[in-house]
Amino acid sequence: MIEEMLRHNAQFIQEDGARRFATSKYPDKGIAIVTCMDTRLVELLPAALGIRGGDVKMIKNAGGTITNPFDSTMRSLLVAVYELGVTEIMVIAHTDCGVQGMNPHHMLDAMRSRGVDDEHISLMKHCGIDLEAWLHGFDDTELAVRETVDLIRNHPLMAADVTVGGYIINTDTGALTPICRASSAR
Amino acid sequence: MIEEMLRHNAQFIQEDGARRFATSKYPDKGIAIVTCMDTRLVELLPAALGIRGGDVKMIKNAGGTITNPFDSTMRSLLVAVYELGVTEIMVIAHTDCGVQGMNPHHMLDAMRSRGVDDEHISLMKHCGIDLEAWLHGFDDTELAVRETVDLIRNHPLMAADVTVGGYIINTDTGALTPICRASSAR
Repeated sequence: MIEEMLRHNAQFIQEDGARRFATSKYPDKGIAIVTCMDTRLVELLPAALGIRGGDVKMIKNAGGTITNPFDSTMRSLLVAVYELGVTEIMVIAHTDCGVQGMNPHHMLDAMRSRGVDDEHISLMKHCGIDLEAWLHGFDDTELAVRETVDLIRNHPLMAADVTVGGYIINTDTGALTPICRASSAR
Repeated sequence: MIEEMLRHNAQFIQEDGARRFATSKYPDKGIAIVTCMDTRLVELLPAALGIRGGDVKMIKNAGGTITNPFDSTMRSLLVAVYELGVTEIMVIAHTDCGVQGMNPHHMLDAMRSRGVDDEHISLMKHCGIDLEAWLHGFDDTELAVRETVDLIRNHPLMAADVTVGGYIINTDTGALTPICRASSAR
């Protein structure tokens, strides 16, 4: 499949396809969006919110939430705010998310059945890595959004004038439901 | 700006705009892409690779690389592989990236000038949080891609049959340059 993409890319370059997307690295709308890696959102979310290339910084992980205040998602938001002019942040989880109800034991079993050595898993635990916590999903999407918005608003390195709002997008209709209305950090 | 997006969304729903994006949560192409949150890539990258909604899991952070084997980006890849049928992974950094040459001292100064208390920064250091390492960018994009591909291929929880390749996309032309040819984990 990667080869197919590389062939598409060669054709795209030959046709000078990039010309219509010319823009800068600064987000025209001053917005950063934290959302899910979900396949359905790749086209639906930009269409449902009227986002074009150049408009926003788009940060994506499994679930579209932040569980660790010092991971790459939070780091990305700080870069967006302090280096790239972002003044508003949207956290957008979605309906029917794979991370909702994700079970670490089920995933560890899947790893073992694909050849990951059980001894290695034990070794990691004895190195202090809590795989069960790390691989645990969220049970309540609305609560997960609230917690992420709180984490961003109260992060000790976040500028107090940045506006943060939390939403859930319906993957069938594209409708955005506000969970936490956009307001500034502190 | 968020309000403008919410107005667009209301219009989108009224016009039943989501109908043409109907698909499932499973990626049709079996690919997960780790790439940058950059504004330019929002439209350019899918167009340059021929990606439509439903095709891939799209994971995005500042820089499009992974520096920590237990952060949310790596977790997202494991979810993609073990829960969602992903068999190929592409790491796609890009030219003119804001994270290349990012200076933690410059960013900490920006934080102070926006009202983050210097005492809080000191306190965090004394809690063992190495902000300078966390906020440091990469100096060499190609090397950063190679390191990320290595990290994924050799991650103790990654299935050995997953193919991983590393690339740099040119933000002016959309051209993808292979850095590490796609090959399986171990």
